[in-house]
Amino acid sequence: MSSLRGLQQPELSKKLYKLIKTENHAIGAFESAGRETRSIATQLSEWGESTEDDAVSEVSDKLAVLLAEIADQEDLFAQNLEDSRGVLKQIRNTESSVQPSRNQKAKIHDEIQKLKYKEPESTKLPILEQELVRAEAQSLVAEAQLTNITRQKFKEAYDIHTAAIIERAEKQLILATQARHMLNLLDDTPVVPGEEKQPFQNASQAQTILNDAETTLRGWQPALDPIHTSAGKLGANAMPGSGETLDSPSSQTMTTAQQRVEDRERSQEEGRDGAVQPAYTTTAESTAPHSA
Amino acid sequence: MSSLRGLQQPELSKKLYKLIKTENHAIGAFESAGRETRSIATQLSEWGESTEDDAVSEVSDKLAVLLAEIADQEDLFAQNLEDSRGVLKQIRNTESSVQPSRNQKAKIHDEIQKLKYKEPESTKLPILEQELVRAEAQSLVAEAQLTNITRQKFKEAYDIHTAAIIERAEKQLILATQARHMLNLLDDTPVVPGEEKQPFQNASQAQTILNDAETTLRGWQPALDPIHTSAGKLGANAMPGSGETLDSPSSQTMTTAQQRVEDRERSQEEGRDGAVQPAYTTTAESTAPHSA
Repeated sequence: MSSLRGLQQPELSKKLYKLIKTENHAIGAFESAGRETRSIATQLSEWGESTEDDAVSEVSDKLAVLLAEIADQEDLFAQNLEDSRGVLKQIRNTESSVQPSRNQKAKIHDEIQKLKYKEPESTKLPILEQELVRAEAQSLVAEAQLTNITRQKFKEAYDIHTAAIIERAEKQLILATQARHMLNLLDDTPVVPGEEKQPFQNASQAQTILNDAETTLRGWQPALDPIHTSAGKLGANAMPGSGETLDSPSSQTMTTAQQRVEDRERSQEEGRDGAVQPAYTTTAESTAPHSA
Repeated sequence: MSSLRGLQQPELSKKLYKLIKTENHAIGAFESAGRETRSIATQLSEWGESTEDDAVSEVSDKLAVLLAEIADQEDLFAQNLEDSRGVLKQIRNTESSVQPSRNQKAKIHDEIQKLKYKEPESTKLPILEQELVRAEAQSLVAEAQLTNITRQKFKEAYDIHTAAIIERAEKQLILATQARHMLNLLDDTPVVPGEEKQPFQNASQAQTILNDAETTLRGWQPALDPIHTSAGKLGANAMPGSGETLDSPSSQTMTTAQQRVEDRERSQEEGRDGAVQPAYTTTAESTAPHSA
C-alpha cells in the first residue's frame, strides 16, 4: 500500500480512485519513455560523429532528428492521457459527492427499523418517515446525476484517450517510415583495408527526407471516427432539459485538464486552414465511418 | 554516474556503451507502460461493473479487452527494441576488439620517437620500424572490419527499431479505432430521477466490434519499405569477398537477440500463407518505394 489516501475515499469512488492512480503511473512511464528516447537520439548523433565515418555520421545525425520527434510524440501522448485522466476525476468527484445521500437514506431507514422494534408508538416515527421520503427523493436525483455524469464523462475520457493513441500512432508512422528512407542512404558495401573513406554522397537527399517528414507532420490532421454524445441536453444540474450546460464557465465540474484539451484543440485549429473534423460531435452530425 | 563499468570500456566503445545503456532504460519504460496499461484495463472493467449501470458495465468491460491488447503491443514493442539493442552490442563488441590494435600502433610509434631522440643509432630502431609496419597493416584491417560491421549492423539495428515503431503504431491504430466504435455503443442521453435503467441493447454489436478487432489484428502483416543491404558480400572476417558470411552459425558476432528476431520472423512467416515481404532485402531485390 503506497498511500493511505485511498482508504479515506468513499466506498463509491474507491475503484475509480485506484484507476486514476494507475493512470498516473502509466503517464509517468510514457514520460520516462519520451525522455529516454530523446537521450538515445542525442547519444546516437554523438556516437555517429565519433565513428569518423562521414556516411555513418550524417545518417545517424539525421536519424537522431527523427528519433527526437518520435520522442516528442511520446510526450504529447502522456499529456493527452493526463487530459483524459482529468475527465475521469470529474466522475470520481461526482461519485464522492453522491455517497452522503446514499448514507443518509440508509441511516434514516435503519433508525426507523430500530424505533419500530423498540418504541413502535414513538411520535418520532412519522417524522422519520417524512425524512426518509425526502432522503429518497434526494437520492433518486443524486443517482440520476451520477448516471448522467458517468456515461457522459466516461465517453469523453476515452474519446481523448483513444484519440491520443491514434495521434501518436499516425505521427510515429510518418516519422518511422522516413527514418527507413534515411537508413537506405547508407551504403554498407564492404570496404577493403586501406580503402579511402568516400565523403557522404547523399547529404541533400538526407535533408529532403527530413524536410518531407517535417512537412507531412505539420500537415497532419486528426481524421477520427466521431464519438457521438447526446449529453448536450445535460444541464448544469446534471439533469436533462436545462438550458445551461455543464460546459458553461459557472460550472465547477469543468476541470482545468479538460479546459486544456479544448484550448489546445482550439489553438491547433486556428493554426490550420480548411475544415477540421471535431473529435466530439453531437449525434446530429456526420456518422460516416472512417476505415482504420 | 550510476555505474563504474562505463569507465572500464575502451575509449572507442564508450559512446555506444552509453547509448546501449540508455536503450535499456527506454525498454524498461515501455515495459512499465505496458504493465500499467494492463492494470488500467482490469481496473476499468472492475469499476464499470461496480457502477451497476448495465450499459457502462458492458462497454467498459469490452473497452478493457481492447486496452489490454493495446498494452500487449507496448510489451511487444519493448521486446523488439531489445532485439535492436542486441544488434548495437555487436558494433560495440567490434569497437572494443579494435581498440588494442590502435593502442599497439600508437605505442610502437611513441617508442620509435623516443628512441630516435635518445639513441638515434640504436639497433632496436630498425626492429621497431618493422614492428610498426606490421602493426599498421593489422590496424588497417581492424579499421576496415570496424567500418564494415558498423555500417551493416547500424542499418540492421535501426531496421528492427523502426519496424517495431511501425508495428506498434499500425496495430494500436486498429485497436483504438475499434475502441471508438465501442464507445459509440453507450447512449449518454440524460435520464430523469427514478427512470428505470434499461438493459444494454448493443451487446451483440459490442461482441462484433471485438471480433472485428481480433480478426484485423490477426491478419496484420508488415508492409515495410525494405532496408537494402550490400553487406551480404561481407565475410566472416568482416572483409569483402569471402564466401562464408557473418550470419553463419560458426560466427560469434551473432547474438542471441538477433537470432531471436529472425526466429520470431521465421515463425511468423511460417504461420502465414501467401508471399511475405521480408523487412531486410538485398540491393538486387525490389526497390519500389512504399508511401507513408
